[in-house]
Amino acid sequence: MTLFRGLSAFPLTPTDAEGIVDTEALARFLERIHHAGADSIGLLGSTGGYAYLTREQRKRAVQAAVECIGGKTPLVVGVGALRTDEAQALARDAKSAGADGLLLAPMSYVPLKEDEVFEHFGAVAKVDLPLCIYNNPGTTRFTFSDALIARLAAVSNIVAVKMPLAANDDYAGELARLRQMTPDTFTIGYSGDWGAADALLAGCDTWYSVAAGLLAAPALALTRAAQSGDAVEAARLNHAFEPLWTLFKRYGSFRVMFVIADLLGLAHVQPPRPVLPLPEDARDDVRQALGTLEIG
Amino acid sequence: MTLFRGLSAFPLTPTDAEGIVDTEALARFLERIHHAGADSIGLLGSTGGYAYLTREQRKRAVQAAVECIGGKTPLVVGVGALRTDEAQALARDAKSAGADGLLLAPMSYVPLKEDEVFEHFGAVAKVDLPLCIYNNPGTTRFTFSDALIARLAAVSNIVAVKMPLAANDDYAGELARLRQMTPDTFTIGYSGDWGAADALLAGCDTWYSVAAGLLAAPALALTRAAQSGDAVEAARLNHAFEPLWTLFKRYGSFRVMFVIADLLGLAHVQPPRPVLPLPEDARDDVRQALGTLEIG
Repeated sequence: MTLFRGLSAFPLTPTDAEGIVDTEALARFLERIHHAGADSIGLLGSTGGYAYLTREQRKRAVQAAVECIGGKTPLVVGVGALRTDEAQALARDAKSAGADGLLLAPMSYVPLKEDEVFEHFGAVAKVDLPLCIYNNPGTTRFTFSDALIARLAAVSNIVAVKMPLAANDDYAGELARLRQMTPDTFTIGYSGDWGAADALLAGCDTWYSVAAGLLAAPALALTRAAQSGDAVEAARLNHAFEPLWTLFKRYGSFRVMFVIADLLGLAHVQPPRPVLPLPEDARDDVRQALGTLEIG
Repeated sequence: MTLFRGLSAFPLTPTDAEGIVDTEALARFLERIHHAGADSIGLLGSTGGYAYLTREQRKRAVQAAVECIGGKTPLVVGVGALRTDEAQALARDAKSAGADGLLLAPMSYVPLKEDEVFEHFGAVAKVDLPLCIYNNPGTTRFTFSDALIARLAAVSNIVAVKMPLAANDDYAGELARLRQMTPDTFTIGYSGDWGAADALLAGCDTWYSVAAGLLAAPALALTRAAQSGDAVEAARLNHAFEPLWTLFKRYGSFRVMFVIADLLGLAHVQPPRPVLPLPEDARDDVRQALGTLEIG
C-alpha cells in the first residue's frame, strides 16, 4: 500500500472568511493531485489549515474528498486537536467518512511531556486506522525523541512518522538510527520541502509535500528521480524548485500556497485570520518562482 | 482602577472529563480569591485552561464568575483563540456577560508575523473593553518585540501587558525600556511566579499569579511587601514559596495547581487530557511545599 510511501501531497483547504469549506474548490485541488499521480493525499494537514477549522467543517472536507477521490488516491486525514477526546472524535469522523489513514500532530498549549503524548497517540490509534506520527515542532512546539518514536512505533496502528528537516541535513544518519529502533514495516518520511531531494536520495520512504498540494507533477518527477537513485536528475528538478523554496522559507509555505492557488486560477481564497495574505510584491516573486517549474 | 495593577489571581477552571465547567467548584475558587483581597481575577488564563474549552463552556464560566464576584473583585477574561473571528466572538461573549477586562494571547499554529499579531489584537480590542497583552511565548510560541508592544500600546483599549520572566532577571532594565516606549497609563506586569518578588521590587505594576489562584493570601502578602519596597519581608515570604516554585519549574504550574485544589479540599478535578495528573510521589512533594506557606 502507498498510504505512507512515495509522494504524499498536502492541499490547502479552501474556505470563506468564516471558515466554511469550499468543497468545489477543494475537489479541484484533489482532482489535480490525483491526475498527476501522487501516491497519497494528506488532507487537513498543517497546509490544510486543520487547526483553524471546526469539527463540522473538517468532517465536510473529508466527506467531499472521499466523494471526489475515494478509492482512487489513498486519503490520509489530519486529526490533531488540543484535547484527546476531540482528536479521537475527529479520527472517528474521518474513519466513518471513508478516510484510509490518519495523521496526528501533538497540538499543544500547555507544553506536553513524553508520557502525555504517548497516551494521547495511543487513545487516537484505538480508532483503528493506520496512523502516521506528525512530528512538526514548528507548529506544535513538541519535539519527538527517538525513544518516543520507537515506543509509539510498537503501538497497534501506528505505522509511520512524518519527520521535520533533519539536523545538519543528516538524513542517512537519522534514517539508520530510527530504522534500528522501529519495525521493518514502519515508514519514515520527511516534510520541509527543500530537504526532500536529500531525504529521498538518502532512502526515506515518503515525501510529505506542501508544494505537491498544487504542484504535484513536478514534485512527483522529483520524487521518482530521487527514489530511483538518479541524483543528477533529482538535483536538476530540485534546482527548478529553489526559487519557491526560498519563498517558503521567507514567508512560510502556508501563506505562499494561497498565492499559487490564485495564480493558477484554481481558487481565489485567503488564509484564515490572523494569518494575512502576502503583499503584492511577494505575489510577483511567487509568479516568477512558478516560471522555472514544469507545472504540468 | 485595579484591573491590571497589584495582584491578579489566575484560578483553574474545574471541569469534568468532557470539559464541562463545574461552576460550583469555580465559585469556591473565586470566593477564596475575593476573600483574600486580591486586586483582580484572571479567569480563563493559561492556568484556567481556556485553550481546552469550547466557546460555550467559556461563556458559562464567565457568567458563573460574574454571578459570584461581579462588582466585588475586577474580572479579567482570557479570550485567546487560533482564529481572529473566534477571539472576537469570545471577547463579545465576555463583555456581554459582564467582564471588566480582556486578556489576549496570540495563540498560534502557523507561526505568526508581527503584523498579523498587530491586526489580530486590533480586531479584538474593537470589542471595547480594557485589554491586556498576554505575552506568553511558552504556550503561544510568539515572542513580542518591544517595538510591537509599543505599537499595540498606542491602540485604543490596549492598556497593559503581562510579560514572561525577564531575560537575566533584569526587570529594572526591561521596565525602563518598555516604559519609555508606552503611555504613562499603560501597565506592565509579570507572570512566572518565581520572578514575581524581583519584578515587583523592581517596580512593575502587576503580578499575574498562578499560585494566587488557590493561595491568594500568601501571594498577596508577598505582593504588598514588595510593593511597599520591603525587600527583606518580600524575600522572607518568597522564600516560603520556594519549594512550590521548584515544583512549578519541574512539573509545570498547571499540573501542580490541580493537586493543590485537591489537597486543600476545594475540588477533586483533573487536567484536560492529554495533560496527565501528577503521579503520587509528586503529590507528596506538593503537600510538603504547602507546609511552608501561611495559606490563610
